Amino acid sequence: MKAPFVKDLAADQSITGFFLVVEKEVRNTAGGKPYLRMELGDKSGTVEARMWDHFEDPAKDVSRDDFVKVQARVELYRNKTQLALSQLRRAKPEEIELADFLPHTPFDVEVLYKQLQGFMEELKNPWLKQLVAKVYSDPQVVAKMKRAPAAKVMHHAYIGGLLEHVVGLCGLAKQMGAHYPELDVDLLLMAAMLHDIGKLEELCYERAVSYTAEGQLLGHIVMELETVSKVMDSIEGFPAKLKAVVQHILISHHGEYEFGSPKLPMIREALVFHYLDDMDSKVAAVRAALAVDSGEEDWSVYSGALGRKFLRLDAYLKEPEKKKEAKN
Amino acid sequence: MKAPFVKDLAADQSITGFFLVVEKEVRNTAGGKPYLRMELGDKSGTVEARMWDHFEDPAKDVSRDDFVKVQARVELYRNKTQLALSQLRRAKPEEIELADFLPHTPFDVEVLYKQLQGFMEELKNPWLKQLVAKVYSDPQVVAKMKRAPAAKVMHHAYIGGLLEHVVGLCGLAKQMGAHYPELDVDLLLMAAMLHDIGKLEELCYERAVSYTAEGQLLGHIVMELETVSKVMDSIEGFPAKLKAVVQHILISHHGEYEFGSPKLPMIREALVFHYLDDMDSKVAAVRAALAVDSGEEDWSVYSGALGRKFLRLDAYLKEPEKKKEAKN
Amino acid sequence: MKAPFVKDLAADQSITGFFLVVEKEVRNTAGGKPYLRMELGDKSGTVEARMWDHFEDPAKDVSRDDFVKVQARVELYRNKTQLALSQLRRAKPEEIELADFLPHTPFDVEVLYKQLQGFMEELKNPWLKQLVAKVYSDPQVVAKMKRAPAAKVMHHAYIGGLLEHVVGLCGLAKQMGAHYPELDVDLLLMAAMLHDIGKLEELCYERAVSYTAEGQLLGHIVMELETVSKVMDSIEGFPAKLKAVVQHILISHHGEYEFGSPKLPMIREALVFHYLDDMDSKVAAVRAALAVDSGEEDWSVYSGALGRKFLRLDAYLKEPEKKKEAKN
Amino acid sequence: MKAPFVKDLAADQSITGFFLVVEKEVRNTAGGKPYLRMELGDKSGTVEARMWDHFEDPAKDVSRDDFVKVQARVELYRNKTQLALSQLRRAKPEEIELADFLPHTPFDVEVLYKQLQGFMEELKNPWLKQLVAKVYSDPQVVAKMKRAPAAKVMHHAYIGGLLEHVVGLCGLAKQMGAHYPELDVDLLLMAAMLHDIGKLEELCYERAVSYTAEGQLLGHIVMELETVSKVMDSIEGFPAKLKAVVQHILISHHGEYEFGSPKLPMIREALVFHYLDDMDSKVAAVRAALAVDSGEEDWSVYSGALGRKFLRLDAYLKEPEKKKEAKN
Amino acid sequence: MKAPFVKDLAADQSITGFFLVVEKEVRNTAGGKPYLRMELGDKSGTVEARMWDHFEDPAKDVSRDDFVKVQARVELYRNKTQLALSQLRRAKPEEIELADFLPHTPFDVEVLYKQLQGFMEELKNPWLKQLVAKVYSDPQVVAKMKRAPAAKVMHHAYIGGLLEHVVGLCGLAKQMGAHYPELDVDLLLMAAMLHDIGKLEELCYERAVSYTAEGQLLGHIVMELETVSKVMDSIEGFPAKLKAVVQHILISHHGEYEFGSPKLPMIREALVFHYLDDMDSKVAAVRAALAVDSGEEDWSVYSGALGRKFLRLDAYLKEPEKKKEAKN
Amino acid sequence: MKAPFVKDLAADQSITGFFLVVEKEVRNTAGGKPYLRMELGDKSGTVEARMWDHFEDPAKDVSRDDFVKVQARVELYRNKTQLALSQLRRAKPEEIELADFLPHTPFDVEVLYKQLQGFMEELKNPWLKQLVAKVYSDPQVVAKMKRAPAAKVMHHAYIGGLLEHVVGLCGLAKQMGAHYPELDVDLLLMAAMLHDIGKLEELCYERAVSYTAEGQLLGHIVMELETVSKVMDSIEGFPAKLKAVVQHILISHHGEYEFGSPKLPMIREALVFHYLDDMDSKVAAVRAALAVDSGEEDWSVYSGALGRKFLRLDAYLKEPEKKKEAKN
Repeated sequence: MKAPFVKDLAADQSITGFFLVVEKEVRNTAGGKPYLRMELGDKSGTVEARMWDHFEDPAKDVSRDDFVKVQARVELYRNKTQLALSQLRRAKPEEIELADFLPHTPFDVEVLYKQLQGFMEELKNPWLKQLVAKVYSDPQVVAKMKRAPAAKVMHHAYIGGLLEHVVGLCGLAKQMGAHYPELDVDLLLMAAMLHDIGKLEELCYERAVSYTAEGQLLGHIVMELETVSKVMDSIEGFPAKLKAVVQHILISHHGEYEFGSPKLPMIREALVFHYLDDMDSKVAAVRAALAVDSGEEDWSVYSGALGRKFLRLDAYLKEPEKKKEAKN
Repeated sequence: MKAPFVKDLAADQSITGFFLVVEKEVRNTAGGKPYLRMELGDKSGTVEARMWDHFEDPAKDVSRDDFVKVQARVELYRNKTQLALSQLRRAKPEEIELADFLPHTPFDVEVLYKQLQGFMEELKNPWLKQLVAKVYSDPQVVAKMKRAPAAKVMHHAYIGGLLEHVVGLCGLAKQMGAHYPELDVDLLLMAAMLHDIGKLEELCYERAVSYTAEGQLLGHIVMELETVSKVMDSIEGFPAKLKAVVQHILISHHGEYEFGSPKLPMIREALVFHYLDDMDSKVAAVRAALAVDSGEEDWSVYSGALGRKFLRLDAYLKEPEKKKEAKN
Repeated sequence: MKAPFVKDLAADQSITGFFLVVEKEVRNTAGGKPYLRMELGDKSGTVEARMWDHFEDPAKDVSRDDFVKVQARVELYRNKTQLALSQLRRAKPEEIELADFLPHTPFDVEVLYKQLQGFMEELKNPWLKQLVAKVYSDPQVVAKMKRAPAAKVMHHAYIGGLLEHVVGLCGLAKQMGAHYPELDVDLLLMAAMLHDIGKLEELCYERAVSYTAEGQLLGHIVMELETVSKVMDSIEGFPAKLKAVVQHILISHHGEYEFGSPKLPMIREALVFHYLDDMDSKVAAVRAALAVDSGEEDWSVYSGALGRKFLRLDAYLKEPEKKKEAKN
Repeated sequence: MKAPFVKDLAADQSITGFFLVVEKEVRNTAGGKPYLRMELGDKSGTVEARMWDHFEDPAKDVSRDDFVKVQARVELYRNKTQLALSQLRRAKPEEIELADFLPHTPFDVEVLYKQLQGFMEELKNPWLKQLVAKVYSDPQVVAKMKRAPAAKVMHHAYIGGLLEHVVGLCGLAKQMGAHYPELDVDLLLMAAMLHDIGKLEELCYERAVSYTAEGQLLGHIVMELETVSKVMDSIEGFPAKLKAVVQHILISHHGEYEFGSPKLPMIREALVFHYLDDMDSKVAAVRAALAVDSGEEDWSVYSGALGRKFLRLDAYLKEPEKKKEAKN
Repeated sequence: MKAPFVKDLAADQSITGFFLVVEKEVRNTAGGKPYLRMELGDKSGTVEARMWDHFEDPAKDVSRDDFVKVQARVELYRNKTQLALSQLRRAKPEEIELADFLPHTPFDVEVLYKQLQGFMEELKNPWLKQLVAKVYSDPQVVAKMKRAPAAKVMHHAYIGGLLEHVVGLCGLAKQMGAHYPELDVDLLLMAAMLHDIGKLEELCYERAVSYTAEGQLLGHIVMELETVSKVMDSIEGFPAKLKAVVQHILISHHGEYEFGSPKLPMIREALVFHYLDDMDSKVAAVRAALAVDSGEEDWSVYSGALGRKFLRLDAYLKEPEKKKEAKN
Repeated sequence: MKAPFVKDLAADQSITGFFLVVEKEVRNTAGGKPYLRMELGDKSGTVEARMWDHFEDPAKDVSRDDFVKVQARVELYRNKTQLALSQLRRAKPEEIELADFLPHTPFDVEVLYKQLQGFMEELKNPWLKQLVAKVYSDPQVVAKMKRAPAAKVMHHAYIGGLLEHVVGLCGLAKQMGAHYPELDVDLLLMAAMLHDIGKLEELCYERAVSYTAEGQLLGHIVMELETVSKVMDSIEGFPAKLKAVVQHILISHHGEYEFGSPKLPMIREALVFHYLDDMDSKVAAVRAALAVDSGEEDWSVYSGALGRKFLRLDAYLKEPEKKKEAKN
């Protein structure tokens, strides 16, 4: 059991609980005495922790991104809470509920996944249907897709965020197919389902969200290109030209060279999918910016992803009460 | 009656017909003799015309963008057809069917306009409903909206193109409202209906599509800002803050400074509307590029608006017949 | 009466005085006890203030950007002065001299305004003369013009700075007219007088200088476009083409799309005015950078507005005394 | 047998010979009579050709990029030579010597290929050695590598140009390894040998150099990424991390996003290889620009690839003879 | 004596006259017979010339940029006048009036130069006064300054244009000194007088305006830096720091790296001078664009230097006459 | 004698030693008592120092960038060591070993300089040989070259770094000459030896590395241009065109306008030298980034000069040990 959460720590308590190791280092005091300094966290925030004595043995067994169990006293140091540890050990997997450590999509991932399966059923092109089915026949892919965030900080940056984004894009793809009869909906749906498959490997999100070394060296576009290409090669008779079309849609979906697409969209569906993906990401980023209390009544926090802040429409359109006059 | 069309002119005919004056100038032969040179056109193309004798009087009465009636002989000069005029006069308005001179949306503009009226009915915000209704209560606006192209060359560059674009955006606005419950659909619909109103004045499209001097000095964003602001001011009690919201959505709809928006979208609906407007324009530009015969089986012509050419998906995915072997 | 100023606060005093509330929040100590934390300021700087007891009632009545009267003890916390408040209430308007809270142009604004009126008299074009006179016939405009800064941080960022900038531009306009006979001086003068009228609404500068919500959504170019266009419409017979010229000069005066001009200058006077406005702003920014003590003898502080620092010419050209040799 | 070459055609000859079809279309005379118009070429240039009678049957069998045998009369039309065809048929493969139709590296490709094999032998890392050997064990790859140009227009744009570029880069790689001891030469050699393998499929160069549809949709970086990744997967035990390193070097070798690299070089050898590849291409582009007669004694033709012209150092440093004075 | 001018050539005349050789080459007819082809010009335009017989000897003695005397018949070829030469020889220097071959400032260069000398007299700083005097004490510099254009195509592109530009800048410098008391007028005047001295060597303008090889390799900023630095070094006691200031103003006067300034202005006077120089060049470019007949009543020709066209204010503000109705 | 070094200071010691004054100011306590605050440093780091009493006299004699001798007590303030000074005076030159205060190239500068002399001997072009010899015949140049860093922060930012960079470039120049026979090696060697001569004056590196005022106003390209041009002028008969070639190579070696080159490379050797210089700087920057402990096993610190971090190839390719399972 997790408790307490970081945000609930109050000075002068003694606590026992579980945390994620965000940073860990051994420092020396000015007098030359070594001590263990860690930053511990959960989904509610992070807190500094120090262990002054007998930390050598337990410290050896603990690394960044491990879960730990601690006994500690909550102290106040320069106006901030801090933990003085008396006991420390790595947590056992069965002691940990991951949901306590990372934020989560507001939707039920099982429901989202059912919706995705429904969209898969609707594919009419037999090659694309087979392609998508085969990619998702890997239980690893399914398991990861139910957990992966869509990005580290830009948008849908929480457990299940990628699935939420993918299902949303499937819905948008259907709408575009209804609006523009010239579009091949199957290509749009396939794009929605496969365009971020590489993020399952690019991002590491068991504890915190970060990039894997491979993710940094290759990026999710190149990673999913390889995964999806292999599956196409494994399907007997998959048409060579359709393969090039699928590959093009995957590599061009960022829309511009500077965002890591080695080709600009040169197929109508690739162009439309780029717009949908970009718009859905941006709408999610605005939603996230508006969800935070910025301290300004009319404005969201500044969104680094979008380079500006956004108006809180409701607050702005509501007539303010007249300010009372000063009294004494 | 128009006939013949430029594309049907054949050498060694004598013709009588109506054309638009695309260019007009008086030149001198090397021997010093003046003659009239014009470029004449209709919706099928343009042709050179020369008048060697007695052109002074009729030429005085004729300017660029006038319609003229001519008698001429079709000649062949350096492999191209050319008209040698014997008679020339300005056409009377009743002699001209404008549709003969400019290409046209494939849709029935009356049907499109009814659809637009339907969307107007659906507006729930009383202020926005009143605003849109008042802008469109001007018969001039309605008449122009049924004729205006959406742009000179970029997209929907034909009679009725602007209305087609506006109605399309209303449809997309409704879909987005269904997809993202947090969006205010009324703002999106209002944006669709008013965001290009300035083009009615920016573009001149009675004969050919070109920019008016005011259009070049101010641009449609500034022109519609003034028109729409005046209407808002004329509606008693129109909330000041809603006015600023409407103005912001209009001026930010190009999405980037370099495309002439003096502000970036800072309201969620402004951001989404920018994506819809941009995507619909681009889809139309791709459609136009694919409609032209490029001489390449797999590729469209190069689209200057998009900076690339597009794959003809159908042609590309169709298996080519095997080339026969050379025979003799 | 204001005293003392922030820069004069010394530890271990008890003071009574008036300040502007720059920030205000209620925090909790680690032990869970709430207290009031504010940042208070005047034109000489800002200081932290805390109120530990009985702050609930007075705090309710006080917001950011209010003026307050306080009784406090000056304390030293981590080497910085800080106020421990015992009494707090909102100040009455009659207790406040605004000049104590914002820096001011070195010039007398009444003299500056007389100079501006002199330039107005010199306008020869009757339409432009009437236009400018009518804009400035609004007492609100005059009152605000005598107070407004020209910008929040870029240049002339002090009370009366906008008027100083406008009068300076009128002088430059006259000089350009003398130098380039082809220029219409009236257009340049009109541009000087009207090009920043929108800043009267874009910026809020009663207490600190900040942007209004409308200012952020629309920007001063769009705001003054509306104001000035309405005045032109209200003048019977104002020529339509001259109106477009005036509008073009206003919207193009930032000179580049990326600085918020939806059109580039396409009229000679618009181009020249853009240069004058830009140069005068930059000269003022250099002046401000040189006015601050940078700690380097030869260089100004780094000017964020200009992206560099500037040489102190006098200091640099003065021969330095020879450094004395080390002695012991 | 080829003869004659386009550059040797003189008016009023009758000829029989072989040419490449660069363009082909059926046009109508002004009088409505159809005729066949083609542009024919070989490595010395191109010439217009027309066939006025009985062209329907032979034209059916001939497409762009085919080789044809023609009988024709050389005529002079508007000061340019032109062919009037009396006979036309597709050439048989055995009648054609490809070297007559495309320019060629000045080096012997068999010698170049031996040098490449020598560099392959020098690889010390067993995995990389096996990887390169396996890629080049495909006789198709070897055959194509001996023919492929390095680019369509930018550099080494001739038969064998790619091999010349690759061998040159191997030499530079060895030099860099000698100069900077910290570099892994094997990675640089592998990069030289594999970084443009995708061009074997991206470019079509049997007759003229052009891009394949797949080449335009995917680009050589993505194409070689797939090829090389498959070979790595087929090597039992190939280390996963080394695979990521190889992939990163391939996808980052263009050095900048805007040149189609989805990742910037983040490995030292990737950075150095990018410099070598870029420099060798640019040196070749300068060499090509200087090889053309520009009509200016001191300057090369303008190089579109480099955006400037280059000084002819020898001509420039040579003292010009004094100009003789005018005589009569 | 020059006559006739190119613009006055009429077909079927025989003429004798002087021209500048703009291009010269020996071509072959299709039949293999060589002939001489030249482009000849004067300040009114250019004309093609051919010499079919006995051209070998005279052609040897004639190069591009030479002046020639010709006897010729004016013919009409494809609707353009063309010269068929019967006699050709290089002109003797005394036969040529250079003013016939290059356009000229509308001002009297001697008057302009007197004005410049007046400004030199006004310099108060003894070092700067000595510097400028010494630079202009070179009779070569004076002679060239009275002839040099300010640029090849951008602005003041005619004989005497540089002097006109320099004198204009001196006038602006004085005005700025009067307007901004903090400016050192001497530095501004020095900048005006020396900032384009390098163009005397960068541009070659004896016959046509073109760049010298040194001009292309170094540019006028680097060339004048060297010239002016040498003069400063030759003045005994010239202060080292003032030298750096002068050098900085020269090298930074283009204001941006991309325009060839290796340093941005970091001295107040350098910044102001950059604005003046840029503005004066742009005003001249607008003046040149408006001077050409564009065929559009309201607009100038497109100015490549400015990337847009400019409104003809007078034409635009003048109310057009009402168009007469069509009559028959 | 230096000792102790900053990195070895431990709390509660009394020390006597020598330091460089990095910052110096007189502050007031909140109670109004003035005290001296300095930042002192050596090649191992920096430390805060305060002097509370009797500091007025010694402080007068001490400026930034002076060396000082101090007696002090090491205290711990907010967890950081800090010096409380009891004695302070300027150090005598003979007390200071500069090498204690700035980091140093790992190579022996005398050996490096011998290598450079060897390369000078190899120059074949007599003019270039004489030029280089004369530049290096100035003992000042030699002395400075043996000490100068190549840059303040970008690359080779340590004593002797410039010489290391120059010698490295000479080696690369020789290799390129061997690889590309068309290159003039002498020009490349001359470029290596002279291209950064201006840094001897641009940078000040007696104590810390910083820019001189002249360096900031002019930059090393302009400074070395003047130096080298003067030497060429002083060599009787130095060919004017070769001078322009040398000047062009110097001013274009940064390769792009935005990096301060007023001309792009237009000579083949200038282009190649730009690549070598750029590559060698970047390789050095990567080397420096990898030399620092980043706290990440697989990655270097983020390199500001390169805008990314770099993979530690060795660490990455080494298989990690399997993580042990949690135990209790």
